[in-house]
Amino acid sequence: MTAPKTPSFAVQPQIVPIALDEGQRGYDILIGAGLLDEAAAWEGLPKAAAALIVSNETVAPLYLARLQLRLAAQYARVETVLLPDGERYKDWASLNLIFDHLLETASDRKTVLFALGGGVIGDMTGFAASVYMRGVPFVQVPTTLLAQVDSSVGGKTAINHPLGKNMLGAFYQPARVIADLDTLDSLPQRELSAGLAEVIKYGPIADAAFLAWIELNLDALLARDKSALAYAVKRCCEIKAWVVGQDEREQGLRAVLNFGHTFGHAIETGLGYGEWLHGEAVGCGMVMASDLAVRLGLMPGEFLPRMRTLIERAGLPVVGPALGAQRYLELMRVDKKAEGGAIRFVLPEGLGKAGMHAAPDDLVAQVLASHVA
Amino acid sequence: MTAPKTPSFAVQPQIVPIALDEGQRGYDILIGAGLLDEAAAWEGLPKAAAALIVSNETVAPLYLARLQLRLAAQYARVETVLLPDGERYKDWASLNLIFDHLLETASDRKTVLFALGGGVIGDMTGFAASVYMRGVPFVQVPTTLLAQVDSSVGGKTAINHPLGKNMLGAFYQPARVIADLDTLDSLPQRELSAGLAEVIKYGPIADAAFLAWIELNLDALLARDKSALAYAVKRCCEIKAWVVGQDEREQGLRAVLNFGHTFGHAIETGLGYGEWLHGEAVGCGMVMASDLAVRLGLMPGEFLPRMRTLIERAGLPVVGPALGAQRYLELMRVDKKAEGGAIRFVLPEGLGKAGMHAAPDDLVAQVLASHVA
Repeated sequence: MTAPKTPSFAVQPQIVPIALDEGQRGYDILIGAGLLDEAAAWEGLPKAAAALIVSNETVAPLYLARLQLRLAAQYARVETVLLPDGERYKDWASLNLIFDHLLETASDRKTVLFALGGGVIGDMTGFAASVYMRGVPFVQVPTTLLAQVDSSVGGKTAINHPLGKNMLGAFYQPARVIADLDTLDSLPQRELSAGLAEVIKYGPIADAAFLAWIELNLDALLARDKSALAYAVKRCCEIKAWVVGQDEREQGLRAVLNFGHTFGHAIETGLGYGEWLHGEAVGCGMVMASDLAVRLGLMPGEFLPRMRTLIERAGLPVVGPALGAQRYLELMRVDKKAEGGAIRFVLPEGLGKAGMHAAPDDLVAQVLASHVA
Repeated sequence: MTAPKTPSFAVQPQIVPIALDEGQRGYDILIGAGLLDEAAAWEGLPKAAAALIVSNETVAPLYLARLQLRLAAQYARVETVLLPDGERYKDWASLNLIFDHLLETASDRKTVLFALGGGVIGDMTGFAASVYMRGVPFVQVPTTLLAQVDSSVGGKTAINHPLGKNMLGAFYQPARVIADLDTLDSLPQRELSAGLAEVIKYGPIADAAFLAWIELNLDALLARDKSALAYAVKRCCEIKAWVVGQDEREQGLRAVLNFGHTFGHAIETGLGYGEWLHGEAVGCGMVMASDLAVRLGLMPGEFLPRMRTLIERAGLPVVGPALGAQRYLELMRVDKKAEGGAIRFVLPEGLGKAGMHAAPDDLVAQVLASHVA
């Protein structure tokens, strides 16, 4: 009789698998409290002589030491690069700080990169991993709600170009996503709200019941109730895993995850990166997109006030900056979903389902007039 | 009775197919004289509203107008970006000229990029295509022997970093390769020789009979005999297609294509990009690697003079620049094939077969001492 195997985890995390290419490739999203102190969560990652942690000046003082401790058990050499914090540093110059460090330390093509931070750190680390020596493995360690429910999952990586948000990047999947819910305790309230924008997004496009759940549990989420957050992160990751598993490279379905993002990216690029948080722009963008869906007859009239109320309750802006309708339209024409100069919007088609729709410029201008300061 | 179908091509080109993922993906290499004037070679490419030709100031005056004419039949808008000519411009600043143009013209994610030029243009255009909006299609139109026999085929794309050659890039396959042999007529003799280095490479690593054929036909190749060039380009592409079809992402076998490149990249990076042509550095690097193979007992003693003679006859340098053995070793330790600080060399193991080998630093230093000025 063999002794029973000791459970690897002190507290079992939720595990959401992502399957790609009909199960040929894939990875796990681990979701749980205390994972930064849980050795088992860090086992079985790609073997290498060295790991490089990429983080920023805000997150590093909070969590870097614990991550270093975890990785020291797996890698002979653990290096760190700290980038400046913020969307406006999501550019080639910051990316090159990662490459400089990798080459100065003669890091080989097995080196594993760890993204410790929010969406900006995750997007940049993933893109750097895809490019360095044409591809090294990387692991997402998201520390913001937005990164845990959305940006760390699914392999979209990018940097910004002065003329367009996320214009330069790669589809490149992480080896694992490790989402420690305890890291959300330190999140500024503004960033918690920004993350809730992406949580709310999943309702109208994929799951009407989840939208109702968010409406019922929004106060608990805003108060950082751990079990409410755990459910929200898990449900968002499940929906995203389902979508990405069917359409990794956004040939079709995956675009629905961009609900509110066409208007939102225009706000971010138009104001200058970092003025509004990405989630804030998406929140306001969802109000505009909801109005457009109503005006196109895709959704009943009550959908717009329902969305606006929820987004406002989440602490997000519902009135856009006054860039001028022409500037909005110009910025949206370089959106990645645009084709041949025609803007294409992700719009709900009944609750829990969405599709791509064109709209006349003058109708879009009316929407903007209704929701811009 | 239906009329016989008119043959699409005035002169039938050679077609070498590349099959990837067990035939799930792939593309054709078209090799022939006059393809720039052959409408059929340009049909059936990805459809889009716009095409962007990327070329340089040297190649554009020779071939740009004819390519524009071909593409005007397929695309409503045909744009052009000219980059400065030379390996030292294979960097992010040049790459960004492509992105600036794409975004300034609001080019969408179906836009097709065409690389008109040699290896530098092909590597940069391919990398730009992989990154712009996370991937747009591209077509290789190689105009140098080096690009036709090697760099345009197989999907390796990259730019240089000051600390290492081709360190930043992607595996990203073109939609087609169109190699017009007539473009070799305008090639400076120095660049023809550089291309012959990559032709010679294929012999020792994959095809002993081809090595003997090159020895017999080198004078015809140097005199640009069209049928000799046609055979050499086709045979090189066949070998490369076979290798890449088995190992697209260089997990193993594909590394053999880097025979001579470990020493060669050290020469290029050590001297400063562009001092020596890539093919010149590879030629000299093959002499060094051949010597190392002999010293390690992998090849008989006569292999070294045989290779040195052939490389010298091709008009290539066989003596390396005096960077100092320590500098050579330091540069080679950041080579992409190195692991955990150990340099790994591609060396022949009998004629027509190669593998990866480590070597003691002092033995490498002896090799360098024998072949450095």
